[in-house]
Amino acid sequence: MAADHISQAVIKRLPRYMRFLTELKEEGVERISSRELSDRMQVTASQIRQDLNHFGGFGQQGYGYNVSKLIEEIGRILGLDRPHNLIVVGAGNLGRALAGYGNFTSRGLYIRALFDIAPEKAETEIRGLKVYAMDRLPAYLKENPVDVAVLTIPKENAQAVAGQLYGLGVRAFWNFAHVDLALPEDARVENVYLSESLMQLTYYMNH
Amino acid sequence: MAADHISQAVIKRLPRYMRFLTELKEEGVERISSRELSDRMQVTASQIRQDLNHFGGFGQQGYGYNVSKLIEEIGRILGLDRPHNLIVVGAGNLGRALAGYGNFTSRGLYIRALFDIAPEKAETEIRGLKVYAMDRLPAYLKENPVDVAVLTIPKENAQAVAGQLYGLGVRAFWNFAHVDLALPEDARVENVYLSESLMQLTYYMNH
Repeated sequence: MAADHISQAVIKRLPRYMRFLTELKEEGVERISSRELSDRMQVTASQIRQDLNHFGGFGQQGYGYNVSKLIEEIGRILGLDRPHNLIVVGAGNLGRALAGYGNFTSRGLYIRALFDIAPEKAETEIRGLKVYAMDRLPAYLKENPVDVAVLTIPKENAQAVAGQLYGLGVRAFWNFAHVDLALPEDARVENVYLSESLMQLTYYMNH
Repeated sequence: MAADHISQAVIKRLPRYMRFLTELKEEGVERISSRELSDRMQVTASQIRQDLNHFGGFGQQGYGYNVSKLIEEIGRILGLDRPHNLIVVGAGNLGRALAGYGNFTSRGLYIRALFDIAPEKAETEIRGLKVYAMDRLPAYLKENPVDVAVLTIPKENAQAVAGQLYGLGVRAFWNFAHVDLALPEDARVENVYLSESLMQLTYYMNH
């Protein structure tokens, strides 16, 4: 089946497969059966077979899955077979934390610069990355291809900044501001509403 | 219908209702129809009616929903009708960012202290919160009730630290380390795997 026909539920699970398979590869494991992967991931073996069958015959009876091939194929589906350039808008603690995430770099997701509205942060460096004043955005984007803007700014400014970035050609947004962004249809937005995740926890603690 | 019978899908949507309803309340809106809420949240009105009907007759024909009552009721279901005490383990950039989140405090979720393995961070303060050395954990937990431990530590240490915290009585974990924690059944864990969320974005950018 072509990658375009994979359901959203499967897509949501793919990064998790990536994480476990990458760990296996780091441990030197070259192939793994659906049963072993099932034990490790705490997912049923039949779910694993069903998910991984979506993208071709990597599992062979009596052999299992080739770990490297599977990583490569899932990476291709997730768009990780080419590098992506990211900028972080909002050089506060969260922006700084994300700028230091080694995990992203290993997937070809490179944070290239940070931007901040505070003049005193301009032209400083965070973990080897330049912090620019917001008014440098247009010039920067003209010279540097940017695939994803990471928004770690207060919700009050998020819509205006996202709109500005869209106007300058950015089409993908990883949004940590607690607001739904209104952007044209060809913009992709992935929201991370941290307090919503914490409320899931308080729900389950209290039931 | 009792809160215990609400499906997981509805529970996942409740924090989003909280966010929009709280914004409405801040704007001085006292009541809202499912249609107006639908426009605002970009969810169908019938979905909203179905979701909110789960917890009683707050919507009245020709009147709409009472915003304050709805916030109160959803808050009760989410366990937010009592305060929760949190500690952050790992006083790096992410831990610092979370320690400064005003959003949590407004929901009665109070970060009370941070802990870090680095001796030079011990006894410092972050946004008015004490940072303690890890070996102070047992004494701290004996004296202070802690509902949730927020883990912002490297994945290599997360399992050991979570196990230690569980042994000291902590039963809820908000886990930012990229690893699935193995804990006894009565522990509640909510994972935030940031790079997995970013990979959802790269998928949709490339399809």
